[in-house]
Amino acid sequence: MSTKNDNRTVLSVLTYNRPSVLLRMTGLFYRRGYNIETLVVCETDRPDLSRFTVTLSGDPDIIEQIRRQLLKLEDIVKVDVLHLEDCAASELLLIKVKAESNRRDLLILSQAAGCRVVDIGENSLTFELSGRTADVQAFVERVRSYGILEMGCTGITALARGDETIFDTLI
Amino acid sequence: MSTKNDNRTVLSVLTYNRPSVLLRMTGLFYRRGYNIETLVVCETDRPDLSRFTVTLSGDPDIIEQIRRQLLKLEDIVKVDVLHLEDCAASELLLIKVKAESNRRDLLILSQAAGCRVVDIGENSLTFELSGRTADVQAFVERVRSYGILEMGCTGITALARGDETIFDTLI
Repeated sequence: MSTKNDNRTVLSVLTYNRPSVLLRMTGLFYRRGYNIETLVVCETDRPDLSRFTVTLSGDPDIIEQIRRQLLKLEDIVKVDVLHLEDCAASELLLIKVKAESNRRDLLILSQAAGCRVVDIGENSLTFELSGRTADVQAFVERVRSYGILEMGCTGITALARGDETIFDTLI
Repeated sequence: MSTKNDNRTVLSVLTYNRPSVLLRMTGLFYRRGYNIETLVVCETDRPDLSRFTVTLSGDPDIIEQIRRQLLKLEDIVKVDVLHLEDCAASELLLIKVKAESNRRDLLILSQAAGCRVVDIGENSLTFELSGRTADVQAFVERVRSYGILEMGCTGITALARGDETIFDTLI
């Protein structure tokens, strides 16, 4: 989760599903000193392909350089550059908040924010919230005064808008 | 996303926020041949700490071995082992489905499943859905016959149930 404005870029990288890809990609980012904000690795609807979603900030020239370097790596099928402001992008937050006598207030607040309660502790409530970074971030700030016990977020996954897909131009 | 039953394990790894940690961790998984299903890297509420959430299958002895090896790496603060069946765990899916004359059916279906429409294409709809793997997976299977154009999921993020937090025993 980031407090920055959303001029961030998402690299949606389709790769063959081989364990070495992760190592090669992280090696490239590390050697070049590119600062990744979030990284998500997951399977796709095609069992032979994985998708890496990397969120990062940086000027367009650097991003273009990264894109070209990624394409040179083995087992990389396609690299799409998506601008966060102009794509369908979501992340998911789990957040455990202290809830004692103020439990009712907190529940009303979370409902208004579109959260789902996923766990009820003796003195805590755990919420799930999904959406764009700014909305997720706003909820975090809103409940901070109650006491955040723990949180975990998934980082961003993104798809191009409209009918366009990364498979369109897949060789 | 996985079609397996949820006897998967989640390693929730708290690390210092340094670029080299990602490389060291992926190196360990690669060298040992451990098969990661999903990996999520994101910031935490403490600017000096990052959280790596790794989902993997394997027998408890292997998981315990990984846990011990991770703890030996530099910049690793804490490793918690969570069992997916017994923690608050969610993932997020973005899915672009073909929507032509059947758009109305698809909208009703997605609403029933608790999806949010995040993009409307000329011949497609993009939905966001969050929850446990089984529920997300069920929706994917349900819309498969409409034609899945593309999907991206975030992988799992997880927190212990109840009031317990990974910071409880943080040195």
